[in-house]
Amino acid sequence: MDQLKISGYLDKFEHELFESVLPFWETHSPDFENGGFYNCLDRQGKVYDTRKHVWLQGRQTWMFSKLYRNVERNPNWLKLAKNGADFLLNKTLTENDRVYFAVNEQGKGLWMQRKIFSECFWIMALAEYSRASGDKSYLQHTERLFKKVWEWSKDLSKVGQPTYEGAEPLVQLAIPMILLNLIEEVAGANFSEFETQINECIDRVMLHVHPARQLVFEQVAPNGEFVNNMDGRLLNPGHASEAGWFLQHWAGHTKNAELSKTAINMVRWSHDKGWDDEYGGLYYFLDSEGHSPTQLEWNMKLWWPHTEAMYAHLLNYSITKDESDFKKFEQVVDYSFTHFSDAEYGEWFGYLSREGKRTHHFKGGPYKGCFHVPRALYLCWQLLSKLESDPQL
Amino acid sequence: MDQLKISGYLDKFEHELFESVLPFWETHSPDFENGGFYNCLDRQGKVYDTRKHVWLQGRQTWMFSKLYRNVERNPNWLKLAKNGADFLLNKTLTENDRVYFAVNEQGKGLWMQRKIFSECFWIMALAEYSRASGDKSYLQHTERLFKKVWEWSKDLSKVGQPTYEGAEPLVQLAIPMILLNLIEEVAGANFSEFETQINECIDRVMLHVHPARQLVFEQVAPNGEFVNNMDGRLLNPGHASEAGWFLQHWAGHTKNAELSKTAINMVRWSHDKGWDDEYGGLYYFLDSEGHSPTQLEWNMKLWWPHTEAMYAHLLNYSITKDESDFKKFEQVVDYSFTHFSDAEYGEWFGYLSREGKRTHHFKGGPYKGCFHVPRALYLCWQLLSKLESDPQL
Repeated sequence: MDQLKISGYLDKFEHELFESVLPFWETHSPDFENGGFYNCLDRQGKVYDTRKHVWLQGRQTWMFSKLYRNVERNPNWLKLAKNGADFLLNKTLTENDRVYFAVNEQGKGLWMQRKIFSECFWIMALAEYSRASGDKSYLQHTERLFKKVWEWSKDLSKVGQPTYEGAEPLVQLAIPMILLNLIEEVAGANFSEFETQINECIDRVMLHVHPARQLVFEQVAPNGEFVNNMDGRLLNPGHASEAGWFLQHWAGHTKNAELSKTAINMVRWSHDKGWDDEYGGLYYFLDSEGHSPTQLEWNMKLWWPHTEAMYAHLLNYSITKDESDFKKFEQVVDYSFTHFSDAEYGEWFGYLSREGKRTHHFKGGPYKGCFHVPRALYLCWQLLSKLESDPQL
Repeated sequence: MDQLKISGYLDKFEHELFESVLPFWETHSPDFENGGFYNCLDRQGKVYDTRKHVWLQGRQTWMFSKLYRNVERNPNWLKLAKNGADFLLNKTLTENDRVYFAVNEQGKGLWMQRKIFSECFWIMALAEYSRASGDKSYLQHTERLFKKVWEWSKDLSKVGQPTYEGAEPLVQLAIPMILLNLIEEVAGANFSEFETQINECIDRVMLHVHPARQLVFEQVAPNGEFVNNMDGRLLNPGHASEAGWFLQHWAGHTKNAELSKTAINMVRWSHDKGWDDEYGGLYYFLDSEGHSPTQLEWNMKLWWPHTEAMYAHLLNYSITKDESDFKKFEQVVDYSFTHFSDAEYGEWFGYLSREGKRTHHFKGGPYKGCFHVPRALYLCWQLLSKLESDPQL
């Protein structure tokens, strides 16, 4: 590998993260009056809806806490993180320990999902903010909530998800995967006390990994078998790449070489299966048997599968030193910076047609906020620094 | 108007309905073993998922009952309708008078929506089948169910829709609109006994019609005021055109000239607002203030807004005799037959990109079945016959 290339990417990512992406959110998102962040921001950063989506409130709080702790003691980052953490703590948690999916500008409940993800991002945010600020009072609910989320994750009827007699039981990749990431964030270096949960989550993720077909299924039977219906056939290449790098982190923490190999493969297969050779970019959804996915947006190119794949390929390369992994990284970076990045107003666009034409102008919406783009840029920037200073890493 | 033109369209619609669309469903959808219809059918008519979506079970049952009653005493149509009616009656209704959204192949519950539409299409189907077959036993639950649906329509918490403190109360166009269509189907000529409900539904639809802006909003405040957030700004031109022809039918039944004018305008405005001048076709969603709708599929071209607009424009023309209405009809017909119709395997494709490229190959899916295409073709065919035989109609 040409070290100049690594340095070039390092500069590119540093500039994108610190000069384009973070300033967008620092400037446009804070609502210091009501607390929290506006996350429905148009191309220029203007608020087009004042509601606040709690996944994104949590993720942005986590992001600025992380940057403060790991990059620079920038008081504005801590101020932003505190603004998010206080809003999460005071406004978004209900008496039953459920966390809203969306609240209004003032923080009053707007919508509750029958899922556990709001709670996961809530815990992740407060754990990281507590570390960044040194203020342990932000942990007052996290341990209790984690225990509940863990229990709910095995029986979603506890968050109101109904079950019906005719439905084949399916388990979802998203749940053990998000829990693995959550544990990594919450536990930090003290992960040994979570050993049981970590191993269980890894086992649960592995049910979705089918090496014989080189596929990672979003939903499988509880014993891991393929289910031949529209849910069972669903692939989400970006999600599988993200699961890959989550697992790779755990393979690193636990020094598990077998797991590392599997994680490398998950990312490679997802690229091979998910890349659109005609127009470039990763498909959002695919059907493993070649049917049309029933999701209307299946062939769109979304920002987040690309940010996740970008970091996953670089992480693969840092382990394998295989030029083909670096090439995949470059391919995703090239597509993403060309299509998503907005040099004029900062941050990235989120949604493109299959052909790569922008379909939505906003920078933030119900599912897009200050998270996937800065997280991937930050993780890549960190890893590129290491690769630059120690090519043998 | 050149009468040859009318005759040409009459032939075109007759051929499309009876030679292409109906044979597709007659051949591929029936499940005489388990009852009901397979509605997840790929381009060729092969079943790609055995689940059965109850909106579509009801709508297909209604369609074949209607055709049997109004077009031809074709015993196969009655057999198909009975197959659907029995499945609906025996499998899809719960003890609490809720109707599933989806059931499995054998009719066991798969999913229940917190909405009233499954119930509406269930009632519509059994009412029409009862008339077609002359068997009143199929009405054993419809009256009771209609009363409940009417009550639920004013308080969706009764079907499990939660309300939250921070949510601005909004009312939905879909509800009074579907109820109006339901009453038309259930009441037939005896609509006078539904006078109160009809007037109330018309009033409820009118809240969404804003003549000053020439817009029909999907969701408004309970007093009809515009709400400036992503829900309140949402436009759905095909839906508004459909609401237009529903109202126009009631204007006809009740001889209400004022209502007729409004209905004409709703259809015209929706065309003006919703037509994509660059690539043709009607947008699925728009934001009234020009923001990007947050729905990922907003710029796609779906079959059903086109089928509804097609009939709505022809109906306008039959009343106004204004060539501009006929031109709009022709514009929609031209786009639809060129882009959606499948001469090779019958029926219509359902989903196109903004540019008009086919994104999904299937003919039936969770929301597309034997309904919008044959209903619109049937209604247009009927109206074209009248226009052919009596140009002064």
